[in-house]
Amino acid sequence: MNKPENQSVFTPSVTTGPIIGSRKVYASGCAHPDLRVPFREVAVHPSANEPPVTVYDPSGLYTDPDAIIDIDAGLPRVREAWVRARGDVEEIDGRAVKPEDNGNVSEEKLTPPFPKQPRVLRAKAGQCVTQLEYARRGIITPEMEFVAIRENLNRKASDAFIRDGESFGAAIPDFVTPEFVRSEIARGRAIIPANINHSELEPMIIGRNFLTKINANIGNSAVTSSMAEEVDKMVWSIRHGADTVMDLSTGRNIHNIRDWIIRNAPIPIGTVPIYQALEKVNGIAEDLTWEIYRDTLIEQAEQGVDYFTIHAGVRLAYIHLTAKRVTGIVSRGGSIMAKWCLSHHKESFLYTHFEEICEIMRAYDVSFSLGDGLRPGSIADANDAAQFAELETLGELTKIAWKHGVQVMIEGPGHVPMHKIKENMDKQLELCGEAPFYTLGPLTTDIAPGYDHITSAIGAAMIGWFGTAMLCYVTPKEHLGLPNRDDVKVGVITYKLAAHASDLAKGHPAARLRDDAVSRARFEFRWEDQFNLSLDPDTARQYHDETLPKDAHKTAHFCSMCGPKFCSMKITQDVRDYAAAKEEAERGMEEMSVKFREGGSEIDVALIA
Amino acid sequence: MNKPENQSVFTPSVTTGPIIGSRKVYASGCAHPDLRVPFREVAVHPSANEPPVTVYDPSGLYTDPDAIIDIDAGLPRVREAWVRARGDVEEIDGRAVKPEDNGNVSEEKLTPPFPKQPRVLRAKAGQCVTQLEYARRGIITPEMEFVAIRENLNRKASDAFIRDGESFGAAIPDFVTPEFVRSEIARGRAIIPANINHSELEPMIIGRNFLTKINANIGNSAVTSSMAEEVDKMVWSIRHGADTVMDLSTGRNIHNIRDWIIRNAPIPIGTVPIYQALEKVNGIAEDLTWEIYRDTLIEQAEQGVDYFTIHAGVRLAYIHLTAKRVTGIVSRGGSIMAKWCLSHHKESFLYTHFEEICEIMRAYDVSFSLGDGLRPGSIADANDAAQFAELETLGELTKIAWKHGVQVMIEGPGHVPMHKIKENMDKQLELCGEAPFYTLGPLTTDIAPGYDHITSAIGAAMIGWFGTAMLCYVTPKEHLGLPNRDDVKVGVITYKLAAHASDLAKGHPAARLRDDAVSRARFEFRWEDQFNLSLDPDTARQYHDETLPKDAHKTAHFCSMCGPKFCSMKITQDVRDYAAAKEEAERGMEEMSVKFREGGSEIDVALIA
Repeated sequence: MNKPENQSVFTPSVTTGPIIGSRKVYASGCAHPDLRVPFREVAVHPSANEPPVTVYDPSGLYTDPDAIIDIDAGLPRVREAWVRARGDVEEIDGRAVKPEDNGNVSEEKLTPPFPKQPRVLRAKAGQCVTQLEYARRGIITPEMEFVAIRENLNRKASDAFIRDGESFGAAIPDFVTPEFVRSEIARGRAIIPANINHSELEPMIIGRNFLTKINANIGNSAVTSSMAEEVDKMVWSIRHGADTVMDLSTGRNIHNIRDWIIRNAPIPIGTVPIYQALEKVNGIAEDLTWEIYRDTLIEQAEQGVDYFTIHAGVRLAYIHLTAKRVTGIVSRGGSIMAKWCLSHHKESFLYTHFEEICEIMRAYDVSFSLGDGLRPGSIADANDAAQFAELETLGELTKIAWKHGVQVMIEGPGHVPMHKIKENMDKQLELCGEAPFYTLGPLTTDIAPGYDHITSAIGAAMIGWFGTAMLCYVTPKEHLGLPNRDDVKVGVITYKLAAHASDLAKGHPAARLRDDAVSRARFEFRWEDQFNLSLDPDTARQYHDETLPKDAHKTAHFCSMCGPKFCSMKITQDVRDYAAAKEEAERGMEEMSVKFREGGSEIDVALIA
Repeated sequence: MNKPENQSVFTPSVTTGPIIGSRKVYASGCAHPDLRVPFREVAVHPSANEPPVTVYDPSGLYTDPDAIIDIDAGLPRVREAWVRARGDVEEIDGRAVKPEDNGNVSEEKLTPPFPKQPRVLRAKAGQCVTQLEYARRGIITPEMEFVAIRENLNRKASDAFIRDGESFGAAIPDFVTPEFVRSEIARGRAIIPANINHSELEPMIIGRNFLTKINANIGNSAVTSSMAEEVDKMVWSIRHGADTVMDLSTGRNIHNIRDWIIRNAPIPIGTVPIYQALEKVNGIAEDLTWEIYRDTLIEQAEQGVDYFTIHAGVRLAYIHLTAKRVTGIVSRGGSIMAKWCLSHHKESFLYTHFEEICEIMRAYDVSFSLGDGLRPGSIADANDAAQFAELETLGELTKIAWKHGVQVMIEGPGHVPMHKIKENMDKQLELCGEAPFYTLGPLTTDIAPGYDHITSAIGAAMIGWFGTAMLCYVTPKEHLGLPNRDDVKVGVITYKLAAHASDLAKGHPAARLRDDAVSRARFEFRWEDQFNLSLDPDTARQYHDETLPKDAHKTAHFCSMCGPKFCSMKITQDVRDYAAAKEEAERGMEEMSVKFREGGSEIDVALIA
């Protein structure tokens, strides 16, 4: 913990300090030498005679022992200089906070505003300040170079790698160049969610030709939890590997909670603006208006939200298609809009005002996450007419957003049995022009509440392999309650392993390095290395110590499964010695036979060659 | 707990009593009316107006409140009458227990022998007493009818079902008849592991055209655990859904521990006899002999072990193929045999004596589980030459076992990235004539020790979908330590959900009934039904109560995610009302237009019809 003394009484406490067995390293850029691209370098025991393993690191300064963390001040706003240097933004006064932004909460229950409000930036009139726009113009932004370095896991172009996988038509390069990043963004196949007002951001990229990313959801609700808990959960989830965080708050104080989260977030923050808009009309969907929604978009864009989930594909004409479903409409945003459409018997204002939404988002570079409001909520409802009708509309809206220069990803299900997963990916690629897919699981069965991180990790790993760019985590509490800190960690680690399994299967050139390092450590009984190289060193160590707690056991050449007398791993050394001897013997035989042949006719020699 | 008073001091304590929200029911047979095929019937709240949901139940009498459980006496030996009625077995004295059977343990450390030793049965000279032999002769045994009823989950042939899946060439019937069971066994595509000396068994079937099964491993080791713990773990794992249990004990007292386990086991028990044989030669693999191994097979066959893992495919010629692997030979049995082969420079005695092994096993109906001693222990080693060379030999041995009338299944990996899983299944089907495949996971990445139940559930669900008949569980302690009770439960539930996801994707006609019942309960806020219908009611309830502990909340029409003011599920009722009104309006319109048309010419009416 590195905290200054003079903190406000409200300041949340977050977990800081390096992750055990690793150190934080930074790479600098080439075109942008001031970039500090973060990695974690996991040291390996000297006996292994191996280089350290570099892993992707979304945890921000919180894991840097040299950093001073001050939640009241927020993270350093490094990116502000990059944004201002482009000369296409201006400072504005910004929208004044209104009481309804925090749910008209009474003064004693008000979460204090974030102490240091930065000046709001917006595109100058007529300017489009999105990464998509720059990419189209052939500009490689600092953000693009940052993610290129990041994706290579600090490898050099000349470093060895393994290509072994089935990518289903993806175009994953051996080495990611800034130019490749630019071209992927320009064609809409990847996004860098990076609001110009989120200067604390360490940029990351989402696209099928990059490492598979994961999102963690946090957020308070009308029933429970506070700002301090949510900031802590945000830091906690990136510590374990979340690449983006969605703030799904629905209770009071959501404007102020969001401010605290964004100012302390090195990862993109996503929201579902309709949630806050609904709070502003006291939870009565029918009372929503375009004006209230529009105002909420601006409010959140000015705060620095990086992507908005917008359920603009829930059209009036599709709603009746859900009537015979087992679980109807389960998306909260989807059902809000369905209720609005029905009660007014009108087309959704998200759909009718879509171009205006684009105009707002391009002025801040907020990315679309086009929501799947009609996603299936059960195995029975997977891949039905309602779901695919909406997906078709999302494809249509993608093209409109692109026309306006706005970055887009598409949200996907949900609950899907294994045999219907690939169809989701194939249709999404076809209908949405390869815009990144961002799925919630999918859960592959409905019968295991309490274990839905696992039912969904199965579907997530598969759809990630098929081409999904980001996987939204599911915690063990899914369908049952709000996740606590432990649930968030389990959800994140579970999705990290699913995303990594996807990368391995897709044949990402850097993916297997870490598996092989773990496996060598395992095979050579380097227990500490095995723990430190794993996704969750603390849990691995703790599980080991439950059976064999003594320190000596961590260097012992045996484990609790077979005990000291016999070990399968030990036998392999004998095999290696044997194989080496065999090879030598065979080489000896061959030399003999070559000698023999050399004594024969010239024709024989030619035949043998 | 239903325990008589006069128990020995050694008697383990096991968990008994019904599983919450459900009751035990039994179905009787048709050809064999005395059969009592167990199910659990989960009651649904009367408001739902739905029948109860019947689920598969391997938990034995331990969950029957009417049963008297006496671990000292063992379970009722119902099956003995069926076996004796066939007239092809005889009572024999059986092999006397030798001190080395229990690791030459001192008297004070000796696990007491099971109090009531049943008489040993063996095939009369020249007889083959396997289910395969009977099936070939066209006989439908009580075991076959038992599993037929069991597989249908108490459905009637006329009951509604859903066919929706991709089975990759499997031949799953709409309804399982005893004749179908017989034919599947006759062609080697399924097995009923059922040693004639395991009379406590409630038969179950393993084959790609039946419900996907799961195995839980238990067993003491040289380092830890006792008989009481292992019996408790066996009962605990079947309580949560394990279909078979393997006793992988490697420490002392393994003969006596096994006796206690089998006499109290309603599910098939598998072992790896080479583990005990190795203990008999003090852990020195080179000292193993065919005679010691043969004696161990007979010892265990007489006790009633239902299937033996035998690593007869680890041939001398394949061993050097593992020399360049990242993790060499990781199978314990495989490395024992590799060490033996190398040190004697001889072909494996399991391979050279394979026909004699068949002769022993057919006299008790012990099934083969042909072990994959060269399975990959890391992503790097998946699908390599060593692995597939062994698989080819397993295919060859399958045919030899079938020639002798012995039932066979084939063990599979291990560690395999997703894109290489299907090749495992395809090759196994091709090389082993569709003998049931029984895989350990596979783990889809190596980087998550502590979470390998999940890394492997991904692979297990997939390979189950592709056609694997039984999935061997992996617990969170895999690679780290011995699983405790909690780990066993997590492993079992994780594999139950993976197996069920497989059944859904394969299109098993009874699979989706439970998902749909859970989903309806979820949608209608029947919280108690949702818990009770799930794989782990206790955990689901506990997670729910962490956020909303009050009893009233369990009937409340909201949950902690959205709170009382707004709920997406509630909105769907509006949608249904709307769709109904819309339909009615359209019907009205149509009636209007029909009336209109009726006023027109006869030709018009005909055209419209």
